[in-house]
Amino acid sequence: MADFDMILCDIGNTRMHFYDGKRVAHLSHEEGLRRYKNAPVRFICVNEAVRRRIEREAPAWRDLSSCRLLETAYRGLGIDREAACLGVEDGIVVDAGSAITVDIVEEGVHRGGWIWPGLAAMRRAYAAISPVLERPLEVSVPLDRVPMETGKAVSFGILSPIATVIARFRRGRRIVVTGGDAETVAAILPGAVVDETVVFKGMKKMIETKEKPC
Amino acid sequence: MADFDMILCDIGNTRMHFYDGKRVAHLSHEEGLRRYKNAPVRFICVNEAVRRRIEREAPAWRDLSSCRLLETAYRGLGIDREAACLGVEDGIVVDAGSAITVDIVEEGVHRGGWIWPGLAAMRRAYAAISPVLERPLEVSVPLDRVPMETGKAVSFGILSPIATVIARFRRGRRIVVTGGDAETVAAILPGAVVDETVVFKGMKKMIETKEKPC
Repeated sequence: MADFDMILCDIGNTRMHFYDGKRVAHLSHEEGLRRYKNAPVRFICVNEAVRRRIEREAPAWRDLSSCRLLETAYRGLGIDREAACLGVEDGIVVDAGSAITVDIVEEGVHRGGWIWPGLAAMRRAYAAISPVLERPLEVSVPLDRVPMETGKAVSFGILSPIATVIARFRRGRRIVVTGGDAETVAAILPGAVVDETVVFKGMKKMIETKEKPC
Repeated sequence: MADFDMILCDIGNTRMHFYDGKRVAHLSHEEGLRRYKNAPVRFICVNEAVRRRIEREAPAWRDLSSCRLLETAYRGLGIDREAACLGVEDGIVVDAGSAITVDIVEEGVHRGGWIWPGLAAMRRAYAAISPVLERPLEVSVPLDRVPMETGKAVSFGILSPIATVIARFRRGRRIVVTGGDAETVAAILPGAVVDETVVFKGMKKMIETKEKPC
């Protein structure tokens, strides 16, 4: 992947993630547009407002959203999740960003998935209920025993669903985690690996397979 | 419980819940104060601002918050959770309101618990991430298979943690569910019963045991 003559960009609801084949840069929409406006960018985008902005401000960028490639019966799969599935090929891919998406792929075929609010969104959800529940996330809260204190009760409430529900559907599959909270989430999933390029691997596959129509 | 000469009131972050020994009435803080201002109310309250308002506007109401009775090593247990634990005596008590609290009680001893945002708070958390995730809760979404559509992926994301994490710590215990979303939550917990009086049963126990000091 190191010999790109283009820059890949995965645009989420909060940030733009750029990949030049060597390193990943996480930038605000603002900063991403400013810095890469005239670069040979191919992108996927889940945010409609940002997509319209790109049309106006960075007309050279090429949208890969029509390069659908993944075999799936799922209705409404975001292009970022499709790219992540293409990138992982076989296993469970977890993208832990503004939202946490979990998708299951078997020999290249997508078998469904689900969505949680991201770790920051969950913390905000607690804080909005009561100031008593506005707590820092204790990433190493034990998930195998019942909490005995409010701070741990909140952190357990955020992390135990991720560990427990994924374990229930894992069936021995390997797990690849990406996104801004990848390290935190991977730490509670035994044997999970972090790969911040998995979405870009999928985008590369889209470009290679659908180069002409895209 | 039908022969109360007092009215019990459980005050949450969103509503006041009154119990006269026969029926439970769910009112806004405003309406509750207006209607019961001069009644012989004994209350518990997790909202500090409302507690101060009661001191000013309903000075006859008696606060049971000093009537702590539950044996527990948990630090920071809300008085509403304590009352629910006292009310259930043995088993798992789930209070599904603005927050969802889960507490484990063994022969009257509290063994810990945890907290989730309530169903409405979770829906708001999704909606705040992206309009694409603003979805009605499908209460009967299958929790034993992987979702194949965005709406179901959101509802599964909200409900599967409740079913799966509680199942993991259940160990054959009975489950009692209370709170405004009790029916929805009980429906995903096999054999769970709904009891909207469980907190009031605990409050009654507080009054009976600690009558003098309270």
